[in-house]
Amino acid sequence: MQTPFHRRRRALASKLSGAHLDCLLITCPSNCYYLTGFTGEAGAVVITPKGATIITDGRFTVQGREETSGVRILQQEGSLCESVGRFLKVSQFRRVGFDPSRLTVVQLQSVRKAAGSRAHWFVAGGMTEHLRMHKDAAELAQMRRAALLASDLVQHAMGLLKPGIKEFEVAAEIEYQMRKRGASGPAFETIVAFGERSALPHARPTAKRLRKNELVLLDLGVILAHYCSDLTRTVVVGRASRRIRTWYNAVLEAQTAAIAAAKNGATCGDVDAAARRVLSGYHLDHLFVHSTGHGLGLEVHEAPKVARGQKARLQPGNVITIEPGVYAEGTGGIRIEDDVAVHSDRTEILTRAPRDLNEI
Amino acid sequence: MQTPFHRRRRALASKLSGAHLDCLLITCPSNCYYLTGFTGEAGAVVITPKGATIITDGRFTVQGREETSGVRILQQEGSLCESVGRFLKVSQFRRVGFDPSRLTVVQLQSVRKAAGSRAHWFVAGGMTEHLRMHKDAAELAQMRRAALLASDLVQHAMGLLKPGIKEFEVAAEIEYQMRKRGASGPAFETIVAFGERSALPHARPTAKRLRKNELVLLDLGVILAHYCSDLTRTVVVGRASRRIRTWYNAVLEAQTAAIAAAKNGATCGDVDAAARRVLSGYHLDHLFVHSTGHGLGLEVHEAPKVARGQKARLQPGNVITIEPGVYAEGTGGIRIEDDVAVHSDRTEILTRAPRDLNEI
Repeated sequence: MQTPFHRRRRALASKLSGAHLDCLLITCPSNCYYLTGFTGEAGAVVITPKGATIITDGRFTVQGREETSGVRILQQEGSLCESVGRFLKVSQFRRVGFDPSRLTVVQLQSVRKAAGSRAHWFVAGGMTEHLRMHKDAAELAQMRRAALLASDLVQHAMGLLKPGIKEFEVAAEIEYQMRKRGASGPAFETIVAFGERSALPHARPTAKRLRKNELVLLDLGVILAHYCSDLTRTVVVGRASRRIRTWYNAVLEAQTAAIAAAKNGATCGDVDAAARRVLSGYHLDHLFVHSTGHGLGLEVHEAPKVARGQKARLQPGNVITIEPGVYAEGTGGIRIEDDVAVHSDRTEILTRAPRDLNEI
Repeated sequence: MQTPFHRRRRALASKLSGAHLDCLLITCPSNCYYLTGFTGEAGAVVITPKGATIITDGRFTVQGREETSGVRILQQEGSLCESVGRFLKVSQFRRVGFDPSRLTVVQLQSVRKAAGSRAHWFVAGGMTEHLRMHKDAAELAQMRRAALLASDLVQHAMGLLKPGIKEFEVAAEIEYQMRKRGASGPAFETIVAFGERSALPHARPTAKRLRKNELVLLDLGVILAHYCSDLTRTVVVGRASRRIRTWYNAVLEAQTAAIAAAKNGATCGDVDAAARRVLSGYHLDHLFVHSTGHGLGLEVHEAPKVARGQKARLQPGNVITIEPGVYAEGTGGIRIEDDVAVHSDRTEILTRAPRDLNEI
């Protein structure tokens, strides 16, 4: 039976042949899953034009056989890197591709040593990540479900925002509901930040209690059947000050402009610039201290980067976040984030929560 | 005011002087926290004999100032590695220590390039990790609290184990309760495995429903005020078969022997051998497919390794897990895990859940 995993390995295999590589060493867990279906927490995959081999430790060999099809499972002896190296040596692979951004200096030394001097090592970064940027129909369907679950959870969380509740209580309830609704877990540590704490773009939830008229920043995402979502809303529990209202509308306008710019063929830098241009018109661009977004899929941060000067062009099947924000120490922060899928003729917003300023 | 972070930096600084290094580059988040208190999700710390500098991006600079004392916070421009490299160059550091197990091949290339040719790079691995192995009284107090919370959660989870409940429902409830009780989150993805699925040592919770007389393996841990716990219990909901009963008692005997061996001055290999020897007496050692334990602290897996042949000697202040298990595809798995702290004259079991076979 041809699974998506077979198709992906075939696509990668043809790239390997093009690069004159005998094999490619994959160590990143999400790449291992993408190519084989294996979800063990430790292990490596060696892809050749003719097949795939997973090398993993005794905790994950049964799981490897259950989760994969058409893949050889080898149990490691000694360290993973030594075992992979010995496998490369025994297989007499001469031209080995590896991704230097996915191996530590020690790992590369160890695997090279075990593979012996007849193996030659070639930098081959981002090959699987490049395939992953183009989500197929089944992946997009899954990402819609992950985005809708995040949207439901934001709505649910809004209902909890009463003065007196603590940040971590809201975060705990959000993450509980994800699991109850079928997510394997949060795509990242859920952010719930009240008042001035919303000025920390990646605040960790604390015991701080919500007070009336405070800003609330909620940033959450789920992993649902392996795929991530990522959604941020900022609301005011009570009445927003005039400054907050102005800032909110500026961020919303920036986000709207960036979503409109996120079209098939546009560069990622164009999308970032669209958001920055609007904020600059309000003299708020210096408060926008991060990039506009990032690719989303099996990982919550993956290719492409949606940042200043990025030349990669958006293509059908890309899924990215669009999340401009402004942050001022002592006042607070506002961020609005949605997930969008690029199609040949339109851009689809996967997340579904209302975006206008919500005064609860 | 002298915080633990100051003391730790001073201890590290004296090691740097001993190694004739001008500075040490730290990129591992738990090492960054250990030395400065900074918990930003991105950034690096450069430690010199005279001070510390955190380089991080705009999302985390406010947080860096709030969380640290006596540390300089620099906002990165461009990538983190480039910014760190430029900082090393401007500071005219000549002898730079780095940990090759904490930097990817690409990161090292990038930071070296930006630092210029006058900086010389020296492998200096595990310096902070070595300090972290020796928990002080305040850290031990915190780890006791984390272990007790895990113990309470295992007891709570036992109460949920009725035929018909799904694995992921139990996991969701456990992780919700952690958060409600003050944990910042799980130390690792909570494992709840019913029946044959318990044969997967690191099973992910699924929609499988519990049936009568099945094994249930629960492996959970919390992060409480930065410190981790890690606790496993295996129970039977109903009556255990004779084979399960024999295996359970063998694992319990192996764990008891390993705990007894985990004394000040013993090697980690001795502890592992103690567990393996007991299982070998029952002809079950071939089903014990992982190592006996690992260090525990700011990370759920840290030094020392408690595995075959490890020559590191246990010292007062070490905290390790002891977790032998046996696993048979088609039957199930049994693991019993506790966290222990080594003192000069005794070994303290931090976790508190009953260990005898529990037939619920």
